[in-house]
Amino acid sequence: MSETKALASWLVKSRLEDIPDDVRREALRALLNYVGCALGGSPDPAVNIAMRAFAPFFGPPTASILGRAERVDPLHASLMNGISSHVYDYDDTTPKNYIHPSSPVASALFAYASANHVSGRDFVHAFILGFEAESRIGNAVYPAHYDVGWHITGTAGVFGAAVAIGKLIGLTEQQMIWAIGLAATQAAGLREMFGSMAKSLHPGRAAQNGYASALLAQAGFTAGVHGLEGPRGFAAVQAATYDLSKITDGLGIDFDLRANTYKPFPCGIVNHPTIDGAIQIHNEHHPAAESIRSVRLRVAPLVLDLCNQQNITRGLQGKFSVYHGAAIGLVRGKAGIREYTDEAVNDAAIKRVRESATAVGDPSLTEDQAEIEVALNSGEKLTRFVEKSLGNIHRPLTNGQLEEKFRDQAVLALPAEQVEHIIELCWRIDQLADVNELVERACAD
Amino acid sequence: MSETKALASWLVKSRLEDIPDDVRREALRALLNYVGCALGGSPDPAVNIAMRAFAPFFGPPTASILGRAERVDPLHASLMNGISSHVYDYDDTTPKNYIHPSSPVASALFAYASANHVSGRDFVHAFILGFEAESRIGNAVYPAHYDVGWHITGTAGVFGAAVAIGKLIGLTEQQMIWAIGLAATQAAGLREMFGSMAKSLHPGRAAQNGYASALLAQAGFTAGVHGLEGPRGFAAVQAATYDLSKITDGLGIDFDLRANTYKPFPCGIVNHPTIDGAIQIHNEHHPAAESIRSVRLRVAPLVLDLCNQQNITRGLQGKFSVYHGAAIGLVRGKAGIREYTDEAVNDAAIKRVRESATAVGDPSLTEDQAEIEVALNSGEKLTRFVEKSLGNIHRPLTNGQLEEKFRDQAVLALPAEQVEHIIELCWRIDQLADVNELVERACAD
Repeated sequence: MSETKALASWLVKSRLEDIPDDVRREALRALLNYVGCALGGSPDPAVNIAMRAFAPFFGPPTASILGRAERVDPLHASLMNGISSHVYDYDDTTPKNYIHPSSPVASALFAYASANHVSGRDFVHAFILGFEAESRIGNAVYPAHYDVGWHITGTAGVFGAAVAIGKLIGLTEQQMIWAIGLAATQAAGLREMFGSMAKSLHPGRAAQNGYASALLAQAGFTAGVHGLEGPRGFAAVQAATYDLSKITDGLGIDFDLRANTYKPFPCGIVNHPTIDGAIQIHNEHHPAAESIRSVRLRVAPLVLDLCNQQNITRGLQGKFSVYHGAAIGLVRGKAGIREYTDEAVNDAAIKRVRESATAVGDPSLTEDQAEIEVALNSGEKLTRFVEKSLGNIHRPLTNGQLEEKFRDQAVLALPAEQVEHIIELCWRIDQLADVNELVERACAD
Repeated sequence: MSETKALASWLVKSRLEDIPDDVRREALRALLNYVGCALGGSPDPAVNIAMRAFAPFFGPPTASILGRAERVDPLHASLMNGISSHVYDYDDTTPKNYIHPSSPVASALFAYASANHVSGRDFVHAFILGFEAESRIGNAVYPAHYDVGWHITGTAGVFGAAVAIGKLIGLTEQQMIWAIGLAATQAAGLREMFGSMAKSLHPGRAAQNGYASALLAQAGFTAGVHGLEGPRGFAAVQAATYDLSKITDGLGIDFDLRANTYKPFPCGIVNHPTIDGAIQIHNEHHPAAESIRSVRLRVAPLVLDLCNQQNITRGLQGKFSVYHGAAIGLVRGKAGIREYTDEAVNDAAIKRVRESATAVGDPSLTEDQAEIEVALNSGEKLTRFVEKSLGNIHRPLTNGQLEEKFRDQAVLALPAEQVEHIIELCWRIDQLADVNELVERACAD
């Protein structure tokens, strides 16, 4: 049986009861993290600009965008959710294929659920299936596909959205095969766009086009039936080398939600161990900013290739400065969205500590490791070696840490009290009679 | 200067007066051919299904779809025009890169012009620029890009639509660079979809997403500025080998509209010389169908690889049967849309002649050549050798033949009298004060 058909068959037959409990629990964590990211990014200029550009084209306002007040059609809501949830690059990651997996899938699902009745059970089930299909298709073409320059969150994401919506609307196996083909033939997104708003367009279009693929397939719009494995299908065209068995091996037993990770800090992941160690020092010793004389960092050499900026003035530059990461960790004990604003980068105390820092690259360290040594004016030295960075698959964020991350982002869009209510609803989304209960709460007035 | 910037700069500065007269004349032929194809395909099931699937998402009905009565938003109109104009595979071709170039560009332009005031001059100018950018970008990545499995009409087409709309809405150079980047990161379409409705989705999405790229860029949505030439840009990611100089060499002097060709028959192009010869025999000798005893064909070997079906029952199969091509040419003296219906394939006289035919592959023939030998019951033999097939760049369709092709298609959607009026308007589209005069005439009541 072809991989496309085997995958479609599994998706169509899958029942939520067949999904292992730990996977269902991880789905809730992924969804909580996703909603926080979508809320945090919802007032970003990229979303505002896309809203302005597409406003004359919005269909009947049956759907909601997380974090915003406007009502639009569900396809445009998918697009906007996708942009907002990825614009800070703070959403989840499956390190084995570098996909940010939840954004394309959940962006389409929340848009759909805002306009249609969907039970929490069906929603979580569709999310798990979309996530799994997307990640497996990504695994099949990774790393050749990513290395050549595809932004895999866009290219694999469109499959995730297509099958998730396809599951919700009850596609037959034939229709699911077409939906996968229609997704394959719309898979796009170039890494050349990194550093511009277009990067966040990728999960947005993946959500929107995947959703549309499911609708077209349901209506009878035909596609090639070997979208994944055909000689001119997705894998052959978009990857120099690939392994299609990764799409089907262990289907229904192995789930990539188990390999999902959540960024604790909204910046380049190579800075994470340094920030992590700096926060640990802050939490343990509470050194006053003015008591810090100098900071010495020992990091993996890649960190200095990517994040060696010290003389900076803008928040976006801070994301690529390991020195800024150390400074905010030490001074604020925190590295959230507000530590990467222009204001934070130009804060006098943070600036002084940042500029007191030096770093050496040490090839004996992994990219998950860092050592921080803080010299105080008193002559005292505070040091910390981070063996495995927080957020790493071996040291996942706790539920409490995920909630803290959620709050940090969500309050950019919504009142704090409302934020607490959304967190509570996210943890029991699978029990909601109608997911719109959550969506309504997660929109601005 | 980078290719993206050089191209954007040329596009932004271009004036219609700078375009050579012969190119402007060929643009009118391309547009006439395009409108006929869009009208002919407009009642096709692929369009009906897409209309049904997207109806709940249509924005304010400010735009028209060629050949149809429904009013939709301009982005959905672009999509529908793109599907209808390519669904019969009867639109134009630039043989040097295998792009069907007019569909993505004109589909977006006619949608835009149906909702906005656009003069004929500006319309034709934008069309020429979109066509040229698309074809040059295609040249840069052809043949590696096409050979690996990309449907270049989709992937190059999105650039054509983006820059054509971008020109009409007056993008600055910086915005045009972003529009090209946004097009690059949405370039998609797999040859694996050939033989399904999804093939026609490619120019549809190219038109729609290119249009959207221009709107996003105008609103300030940023993209990578090296969308074409960057290390992870369109050419590097989507072609194993490429030549970026083809984007800029001779810009403003050489125009690919001069290399455009128009299919005389709505079927696989390798059947064209056979059909051409058969029609010549019909026109000269008018053999009655029942007088034909047998037909012998001598063709390029590729023809038998692709079109060796004889025992057929459906119109779509007829497109891939060189025997059917010979039969309709001899019996009807014509190979239009109605010669590729199920009815025509099952017509008793056509079936008998088709089944009387034999073919041999001859490596000494080019794919533009064929020999037809008809044995009559009288013992007489009628033979014809076609040296260069009709529609070939060396034997282009005359304006009269383009009109005949137009009528053949357009009457599927509109009354014959209206069709004549549209033809007349197409020939002077560059002089119209408002292109909507043509669009209104080209829509159903």
